[in-house]
Amino acid sequence: MKLLEERILKDGNILGEDILKVDSFLTHQVDYQLMKEIGKVLASAYQTAGITKVVTIEASGIAPAVYVAEALDVPMIFAKKHKNITMTEGILTAEVYSFTKQVTSTVSIAGKFLSPDDKVLIVDDFLANGQAAKGLIDIINQAGAKVEGVGIVIEKSFQSGRQLLLDQGVKVTSLARIASFENGSLNFAEADA
Amino acid sequence: MKLLEERILKDGNILGEDILKVDSFLTHQVDYQLMKEIGKVLASAYQTAGITKVVTIEASGIAPAVYVAEALDVPMIFAKKHKNITMTEGILTAEVYSFTKQVTSTVSIAGKFLSPDDKVLIVDDFLANGQAAKGLIDIINQAGAKVEGVGIVIEKSFQSGRQLLLDQGVKVTSLARIASFENGSLNFAEADA
Repeated sequence: MKLLEERILKDGNILGEDILKVDSFLTHQVDYQLMKEIGKVLASAYQTAGITKVVTIEASGIAPAVYVAEALDVPMIFAKKHKNITMTEGILTAEVYSFTKQVTSTVSIAGKFLSPDDKVLIVDDFLANGQAAKGLIDIINQAGAKVEGVGIVIEKSFQSGRQLLLDQGVKVTSLARIASFENGSLNFAEADA
Repeated sequence: MKLLEERILKDGNILGEDILKVDSFLTHQVDYQLMKEIGKVLASAYQTAGITKVVTIEASGIAPAVYVAEALDVPMIFAKKHKNITMTEGILTAEVYSFTKQVTSTVSIAGKFLSPDDKVLIVDDFLANGQAAKGLIDIINQAGAKVEGVGIVIEKSFQSGRQLLLDQGVKVTSLARIASFENGSLNFAEADA
């Protein structure tokens, strides 16, 4: 997605060797216009897949995911990373290790929102090691629903997440793919859409 | 907001004496169409206020807030409840106690996203004791920006949050106002929009 790659080059900040900070338009401040475009482009890659639900994980996945849901005209579900006293029965869970935050968390979705009839598109802001997507796939499989694909805003293609998902037979659609970081800049691999 | 009140009556679940669970359309599974309507209605109450930023708090505030931002054509910022290794310098913080989760957390926004020129509309899914909104107002004031109002999806009008905000001279716009819970049902007070 050309518009996204240009925005990453313009407003992204590279920290250390392999951290891309996009807090001015995606992970902290959110540009709704860009999210809307991202929603349309990701949705168009799954237009014929019969998607019934979009699933993401709080918090940075929510804005792009809700616009994918709008473009596909389906509900969006965001998995929870933290316990809440109002979540009580029928909870499906998976363990997810975050390399960014260096913690393992229990991700959960209320089982009543997924059924064996559901065809699910997972959406997330970043794909690096694929642990979050793997956890969501695990939960969706527990519900007997089918994962039709994983739509990603920014993929770190030099990490193992993409291959992990492809090895599970899951389609991956990444709108920007970072092949490498180099002297404070970055190189893109060819995006999926 | 009639549509929202009807949806609460249809799909909300009352737990215990005073917990309203709206996880089928707002706090877990999200109905983008309803969020879009909520965005339009909240935005229309601030159409002439010169809003430059919408601020919310992760995670359930993000979906309504991004549609308010769309309707006002401004960026949305979501405050963080948890530390992240990529958030390093210039962070504005406030302590927020959550009665629902029974924990105090440090809420933060990167100072670079708010300036004294900003006129801010705070958006959140629930207003109960007003602690989250109070923390956001504190942060926005630290940045020297002006809070033009607080837009709320569901207000628990029998709790102290609304008065706390009004006492600070802040306009409150709640789309559904719960006056009381009674025998497993609820009574609405007149909504602000």
